[in-house]
This record gives sequence, C-alpha cells and structure tokens, in this order.
Amino acid sequence: MSLYLIGIGLWDPTDITIKGLEAVKRCEHVYLESYTSKLGCTIEDLEALYGKKIIIADRDTVENADRILDDARSSDTALLIIGDIFSATTHIDIALRAWEIGIKVHCIHNTSILIAIGEIGIDLYKFGRTVSIPFHNKNVSSPAEMIRKNLSMNLHSLVLLDLSPKDEKYMTSSDAAAYLLANGFDREQRVIACAGIGSSGQEICYSSLRKISERYLSKIPQCLIIPANLHFMEEKALSRFADMD
Amino acid sequence: MSLYLIGIGLWDPTDITIKGLEAVKRCEHVYLESYTSKLGCTIEDLEALYGKKIIIADRDTVENADRILDDARSSDTALLIIGDIFSATTHIDIALRAWEIGIKVHCIHNTSILIAIGEIGIDLYKFGRTVSIPFHNKNVSSPAEMIRKNLSMNLHSLVLLDLSPKDEKYMTSSDAAAYLLANGFDREQRVIACAGIGSSGQEICYSSLRKISERYLSKIPQCLIIPANLHFMEEKALSRFADMD
Repeated sequence: MSLYLIGIGLWDPTDITIKGLEAVKRCEHVYLESYTSKLGCTIEDLEALYGKKIIIADRDTVENADRILDDARSSDTALLIIGDIFSATTHIDIALRAWEIGIKVHCIHNTSILIAIGEIGIDLYKFGRTVSIPFHNKNVSSPAEMIRKNLSMNLHSLVLLDLSPKDEKYMTSSDAAAYLLANGFDREQRVIACAGIGSSGQEICYSSLRKISERYLSKIPQCLIIPANLHFMEEKALSRFADMD
Repeated sequence: MSLYLIGIGLWDPTDITIKGLEAVKRCEHVYLESYTSKLGCTIEDLEALYGKKIIIADRDTVENADRILDDARSSDTALLIIGDIFSATTHIDIALRAWEIGIKVHCIHNTSILIAIGEIGIDLYKFGRTVSIPFHNKNVSSPAEMIRKNLSMNLHSLVLLDLSPKDEKYMTSSDAAAYLLANGFDREQRVIACAGIGSSGQEICYSSLRKISERYLSKIPQCLIIPANLHFMEEKALSRFADMD
C-alpha cells in the first residue's frame, strides 16, 4: 500500500494535475493538510471534483501522523497539500516516517508560491533565501536581517507571511510592510505586494513600502517581494503593476 | 482573444492540470516550447491526451514570437511550457509583448525543477541563487563563483545544466561535477545528482563530487545540488540516496 503526497496547487479544484486526480480517485483515504496555506475554494468544491470524501488534517494530525500512516499501511492513502508538497518545510517528516516503516511514498508535484510569483516578471533564478514573518514579530529581527543579506548580494527576497486558517487569521502585505518599516527599512524602498497569486483575481502592486503599508489587498494568502537591483526587462514587467498615484 | 501560457510539468501528459487541459481544449492553436527542457514522453503522447494538434515552437519561433502573437490576436492560442512558465527566463518577453499589444494573457502554473527537487528532502527555503552551467564552460568561472557565494552564506545551490533537445544533447550531472572539480572544488564535497525528477523512475544520488563525476545516470534532464550545512532532518532525508560503495 502507498502514501500519495499530492500537491493541489494554489487556488481551486481544477489546479490539481490529471496524475494527481487519478491518484486521489484510487485512494481509500484522502486527507487535506489544512494549516500551512489556504485555497480559494471550499472543501466541498474539492470533494465535488474529486468524487471523494476529504478528511481535514490539522497540524496535530499531520505532525503526529500516526493516523495517516496507519491508513497508508493497509490501503492507498492520499495527503493533499496546498501548493507543492515540500514548499512548506513540515512535510518531509511524514515522508521519512513512511519510508522508515516501509510504506511506499509517491510524490505528485504541483506549482507553489515559490515559483508562481514568476508571473510578476522578475527572475526566479535571482532570489536568495526565502523569508517568513511570524505573527508575533515584535522582537524578531531575523527576517529583516535575511532580507538585508539577500539585498547585499543583489538577490531578490520572497517574504512569506504567517497564517492560521483555523482562526481565519492571515498576515497581510501591509502588515509585512509595517514590520519592515519598524525594522529600519527605508520608506521609499520599492516592494511588490501580491495577493491570491494563482487565481484569476490576483492582486499585484509595485510601490513603496510606505504606500504598501497603507494599502489593503483583499485576496489571501498574501506575500511580499523585496527586489534587488532590477534588469530593465524586470523593471518593464513590474511597470504593469506600478502604483500610479 | 487570449494567449494562454501553460506549464505542463516535468514528465508525461498527465502532469498537466485540469485547468490547463481545459484551456488547451479551448484553444485553436497550441504551441509547445521545445528548447529549454525535455519531457519524458513524445509529442504524440501529449496530442493523444490533449486531443489537439501541437505545433513545435523552436527557440526562434518563441523568441521572435510574431507567429504566436498573430494567432493569439485572432483566436485563443496556447503556448505550452515544460515545467512552469517562468522557470526559464525567456518567457517573460512574450508575455510583455502580448501585454503591450493588448492581447490578454492567462498564466496556468505547474511544478518546476526549482521546487520538485524538494522531494530529496532538503529545505527549499535555504537555497541561494540558482546557477546554470553552459556547455561551453572552459573559460566560464561565474557558476563556480556563484556556488561558492551561496555556500559562504550557508545556502544550498541548485545547478541547472545546459541542454539542446534538437541536437539530443544534454549535460549530465557527471559533466557538471567534472566542471566543478576543474574549478577548484574539493573532491570530497558532498553533492546530490538528480536525473528525471518528477518521473517514477527518477534517479537521485548523494555522494562526493569525485564519485558523481564518474557515475552515469541515465534519465534526462539532470541537475546537481550543492548543499550547504545540513540540518539533521535534511541529512536523514539524504541518507536515503547515499552512495553505499
């Protein structure tokens, strides 16, 4: 019996791959990891396309993993993961545990926020270390330091923002901009705020930290990009999203 | 009328998303960008699943783009891209040209080698700048320098390898290891060689540069990863692929 780790993309039921959907249909148990990101559709929307009952797996169910692994021992079992499988760092543990007890693991990949931001038109090869800002960040300086380090080497930074779907709590790009201003970044530093990337209604705004800190984007999840020096082609691509006021 | 830029994943026809397939079926003209990567299946395999005739777009057709844009002006047109859309840096130009002449562009994302390597179990957040090694590299030191820079900041490096599908020419991970040895890297430096990532027959080997330089992996495309300091969880994940001899 096998454990299928399946990335389901960023937004709606049709973001799954054909390969992923075929695997889901073969599985007896289908879990959805529900705490590291948020889709733009409901569980019922997924169930309607997949033709399967979905079990919501909270942080405890995934990190403990006993229930999922027990199921995978006796029948094909899927763990659906928003985005791609290993874009959140918590999933390698379940793959290793399955491997250690002899359960075969199949990975079916999908897009991730780490690459879907390529759509704004800046070079994915020139990103440095990915940065995360936690909700409780009053005395947390390491995200700001990592971004400075990336900038010092002329590398762009993708800044992922904390979220807690079970509490309907999502950090916004303006919260993140406010964090950076509080940590010594220049008010005129140009940044790109992104919301709902991967959806048809995605919002992208290229402006100063000061303006982004005051601007409300509605879609979630959101992220912020701090660009290093831009190639003229990147600058041209970003001009599509420039704040005009 | 619209231009659909559609990532089709890394290996076979079933790697496309449901959303991507629905868009392909709506399009009158379907191009496949054929020069920045290589699938594990034939064009005929894609045509059979998609139910569409596919036009091979070589470098000139994509970079010049007039023909594709002319088609998109009068009818829905798809450009299929192996992996994700903007993981190769050449595709933003066609999106910008379409935007400038008022053609609506829809991006439908998919996985990319930039994230599918997450499967080996090392932290995608801790990668530095992505590095490419060209075929003609005798006097090219910048890839080696970029890897050293990433290592100096304790960041992993993904090393993408040159390829020319029309000539059936692909750089291998052992070629890349030989390049790094010739550019002063230590023979015992641990690296991860990957071949055919995203396929069920993918090959992953964690060993020394010296051994990788002598080892033949058969699947293509291939890439090399130079890890920085590893977390114990990353080391444990890589132990699955350790060279045992």
